[in-house]
Amino acid sequence: MAMTCPLCDKLARLHELADDVVWQFPCSVAFLGPWQYYTGYCVLVSRSHCTELHRLPKDARAAFMEEMVTLSHAIDLAFRPLKLNCKSLGNQVAHLHWHLSPRRQDDRDMLKPVWLALDRAERDDGEKRRLHSTSLPRPEIVARLHDALKQLHAPNA
Amino acid sequence: MAMTCPLCDKLARLHELADDVVWQFPCSVAFLGPWQYYTGYCVLVSRSHCTELHRLPKDARAAFMEEMVTLSHAIDLAFRPLKLNCKSLGNQVAHLHWHLSPRRQDDRDMLKPVWLALDRAERDDGEKRRLHSTSLPRPEIVARLHDALKQLHAPNA
Repeated sequence: MAMTCPLCDKLARLHELADDVVWQFPCSVAFLGPWQYYTGYCVLVSRSHCTELHRLPKDARAAFMEEMVTLSHAIDLAFRPLKLNCKSLGNQVAHLHWHLSPRRQDDRDMLKPVWLALDRAERDDGEKRRLHSTSLPRPEIVARLHDALKQLHAPNA
Repeated sequence: MAMTCPLCDKLARLHELADDVVWQFPCSVAFLGPWQYYTGYCVLVSRSHCTELHRLPKDARAAFMEEMVTLSHAIDLAFRPLKLNCKSLGNQVAHLHWHLSPRRQDDRDMLKPVWLALDRAERDDGEKRRLHSTSLPRPEIVARLHDALKQLHAPNA
């Protein structure tokens, strides 16, 4: 069986994942992420399969990065986090995507990257539940992000 | 005494830090980072003090992000890492900067973000030495990045 890219596969199944789709931009799709302790956490996936930003054509790259900034702005408008963290790693899945993690004022690990808590959650079910927990229902988080994106006139594909 | 921003302060002392300055772009300055186990690791600091990407004016933001991509491209050309990781956090210093961490093929933690190893290094001197270690002298790493940036016609301030 041919190996497929998990993010290409996800983009091909948007209709099955409608509850988690926050916005469809021209160059990327925003999904609500699993760790909603970080209220508004999204993963923004490039529509084109590409491993590094510098390998995208310049116009497509500029558009993709501006979509990332628009989504960050919307998260900021909707939830007023203390700080936004944006990261493009791709160590496990080398298909361009951004993790946008809004940081909470009351996070005891606020000075650290989120990965330390997420790593603990791999071994500790209590930590996993804490980071999955939401202060708002997930559909309400999606709706608030949607409203903020409309307010910003975010481009819609 | 007034609180100053550590990155504004760093930008004001470039002449003292010349050995670590990789490139002076119009909107940002690239410094060679401390953890050269990740050969070519750079920190790209915005020249203007701003806490979030969406708060930069659109043209300045586009230029700053394109400088980040040019530096990533140069790291890729100079050292051919397995993957590039780029991150803008600002949890400790909320002045826009990118961490550009090239990932090595032989890194036992390749599937994880670099922060787990860097967190260990805070408590473990052996780990700290390992991550500070270089396979090339630091001036040679700076020179190779410089050559790659010239090859890419990187804008120079």
